[in-house]
Amino acid sequence: MISRVLSAELAEFAGRRVTIAGWVHRRRQLKSVSFLIVRDRAGLAQAVFHDTALPGEESVVEVTGTVTASEQAPGGVELTEAQVRVLTEPVQAPPFDLYRPSIPAALPTVLDHAPAALRHPALRAPLEISAASVAGFRGTLDRLGFTEIHTPKIVASATESGANVFGIGYFGRPAYLAQSPQFYKQAMVGVFERVYEVGPVFRAEPHDTVRHLAQYTSLDAELGFVRDHRDVMAVLREALAGMLDSVRDRAPAAVATLGARLPDVPQEIPAIHFTEAQRMTGEDEPDLSPAQERWLSEWALAEHGSEFLYVTGYPMAKRPFYTHPDPDRPGYSNGFDLLFRGLELVTGGQRLHRHQDYLDALAARGEDTGPYEGYLQAFAYGMPPHGGFAIGLERWTARLTGAANIRQVTAFPRDLHRLTP
Amino acid sequence: MISRVLSAELAEFAGRRVTIAGWVHRRRQLKSVSFLIVRDRAGLAQAVFHDTALPGEESVVEVTGTVTASEQAPGGVELTEAQVRVLTEPVQAPPFDLYRPSIPAALPTVLDHAPAALRHPALRAPLEISAASVAGFRGTLDRLGFTEIHTPKIVASATESGANVFGIGYFGRPAYLAQSPQFYKQAMVGVFERVYEVGPVFRAEPHDTVRHLAQYTSLDAELGFVRDHRDVMAVLREALAGMLDSVRDRAPAAVATLGARLPDVPQEIPAIHFTEAQRMTGEDEPDLSPAQERWLSEWALAEHGSEFLYVTGYPMAKRPFYTHPDPDRPGYSNGFDLLFRGLELVTGGQRLHRHQDYLDALAARGEDTGPYEGYLQAFAYGMPPHGGFAIGLERWTARLTGAANIRQVTAFPRDLHRLTP
Repeated sequence: MISRVLSAELAEFAGRRVTIAGWVHRRRQLKSVSFLIVRDRAGLAQAVFHDTALPGEESVVEVTGTVTASEQAPGGVELTEAQVRVLTEPVQAPPFDLYRPSIPAALPTVLDHAPAALRHPALRAPLEISAASVAGFRGTLDRLGFTEIHTPKIVASATESGANVFGIGYFGRPAYLAQSPQFYKQAMVGVFERVYEVGPVFRAEPHDTVRHLAQYTSLDAELGFVRDHRDVMAVLREALAGMLDSVRDRAPAAVATLGARLPDVPQEIPAIHFTEAQRMTGEDEPDLSPAQERWLSEWALAEHGSEFLYVTGYPMAKRPFYTHPDPDRPGYSNGFDLLFRGLELVTGGQRLHRHQDYLDALAARGEDTGPYEGYLQAFAYGMPPHGGFAIGLERWTARLTGAANIRQVTAFPRDLHRLTP
Repeated sequence: MISRVLSAELAEFAGRRVTIAGWVHRRRQLKSVSFLIVRDRAGLAQAVFHDTALPGEESVVEVTGTVTASEQAPGGVELTEAQVRVLTEPVQAPPFDLYRPSIPAALPTVLDHAPAALRHPALRAPLEISAASVAGFRGTLDRLGFTEIHTPKIVASATESGANVFGIGYFGRPAYLAQSPQFYKQAMVGVFERVYEVGPVFRAEPHDTVRHLAQYTSLDAELGFVRDHRDVMAVLREALAGMLDSVRDRAPAAVATLGARLPDVPQEIPAIHFTEAQRMTGEDEPDLSPAQERWLSEWALAEHGSEFLYVTGYPMAKRPFYTHPDPDRPGYSNGFDLLFRGLELVTGGQRLHRHQDYLDALAARGEDTGPYEGYLQAFAYGMPPHGGFAIGLERWTARLTGAANIRQVTAFPRDLHRLTP
């Protein structure tokens, strides 16, 4: 490995001669003195030169110098008596200056030039927060006895919601990209009781919105031997708390770069029933509108001091066929949504677990059981009461960082119009 | 949550009355006494009954009883004075007995009934080893300063190898399923220097072999600021050692169930150059045959006591266009394979990092740069010397557990003939 010190470690080497490596983040050539700001994976470091021709921005360099205290430099130290060696010269400049506090370009331009744009500290920060979140999700569920699974992304039928699926040519047969690991994670509850998967899901979303992508990363969990949806909500609470702890622990610099404010997760997240939410907001539609979601989030913050709010008991008519009904309240379900800062972030609930209940649910919707054969198998062989949830990673990161558009927190987004880079 | 003790914890509750929950793994009804073996996520537990009608296999049950020492029972204790409550009755029996030491059915039957078959302790064990391996992979790379990424699985062109890609209908345009995250992980070296991804990759593999799947899980890593491929090999060594440590730590029961023998990873994995491998095996083809791979693995074990062997310096003609040549040896590359127990397990190497080298490499292969535009961007803006590798998770697990067919260690395999369940 190239022998080097990371920018964030420089202060530990005060007075010593060391080599750093990275990209030229900024070159400033003054009359008698010149500076390079070098960017590496840990941050920025400044080096001071005299009478040297310096390489331009985005050149890949090694810089050797003496670590010297400096109040103006990032981290309080800089490299003096510095020498630079160029490893790679760029052949063109990015269409925007990466050293400015924000990129002065429209989002499509930024996305078109993602390999360069993501080098900007403020654009890569959401991806660091995203990585830390996923590590916290896995760590929490590992601790709770969950097993990680990997399930098929190519499926035989467009069963889960019917619409918005991508078709594939599969060795001369039709097939589809999986919209979620729902059926497989349920089947795996029969094997491991508690499972999770972090993976891509695909939606042929025909609308061009700030909240939808054709591919996103879903954090899925499913667990057996629950009393009802409340046990699922308790695990989701732990997962969210673990994700935030991990962000605080692993990505403090990214949080600081973005000035992101991380929420507290109450020991018990407040919950209200769907009918109560409707009563409070004076509506009677079978679903919540975006305005209602915002109102309810504000109410939860004012009333309970919580940025998270569970809405439970959604009407069966608005939930997928595998949703478990509320045994005490006909027409309503054991399904829930989690609102976070005014938006739905997570959908979950208890699922049906008896084979006959699946047959009845499909019959009630006028659906043939044929396409569900592989799925129904798991229930024919005996399944415990179970439930689960799915967190959209990009939606989570966007809410956490205050990004207005989900594409701002996705490395290479895919949507109705975008298939490259 | 249903209040219960896990099977593996029973011995800690000796003399106390507790409840366990799980599936009836086996029911044995004798003249005056009957037994249930209950299977939960932690293992098996036995309960003893007198004069009770007991539920059949795969019933989901809660069993309450007094924890009593018993030499015959799994774990050295059993539940006596037991009472059983059925949570869910199965509506049909699996087509094979899950309580036998192995499933007496052909692989296609097993795969057709995966939701039931994977409940068998010997069939679920490889998936536990797989999950533990991935946790070790991530943990090791996290420790080494890598960042986890999630990259597009839907891509605009079939560029990486040209053949064996699945086509998708993407909002009326053609698109393809990604064969690997190669291009994206390289681009992200420009952002985070060191990245990894664990995710599905797709190969429209038209051959029906024991080693190929249409979808598998790839453990990808890529790192910048390397001297050459040897730095990549050193990181791969750490990843493998971390994976095995994690298997020992997290999945000892699964290892014991399968009688799997875990290899030691030498501090330095032995390496031989491709030309030397050819000389020793008396061949001169531009690639290694399966027989050569087996011979070389045996040689490494006899000569170096290692079940792992690096073969370095593969001919450029047999490696992808982005492979970095060996600067000292025209025609040979800085690409390597890792052989493990007679088979190629990992492919990796140093990549080109200069923009002009990519243009030259594509021109030499007579390829237009158009489809590579998004990829080439990263290099235009300055990239450090870098390299990486990809481990096929199912191939790894199969080798580790001695499975003859990769489908035996894949929950729901996809291949030329199989698209369900």
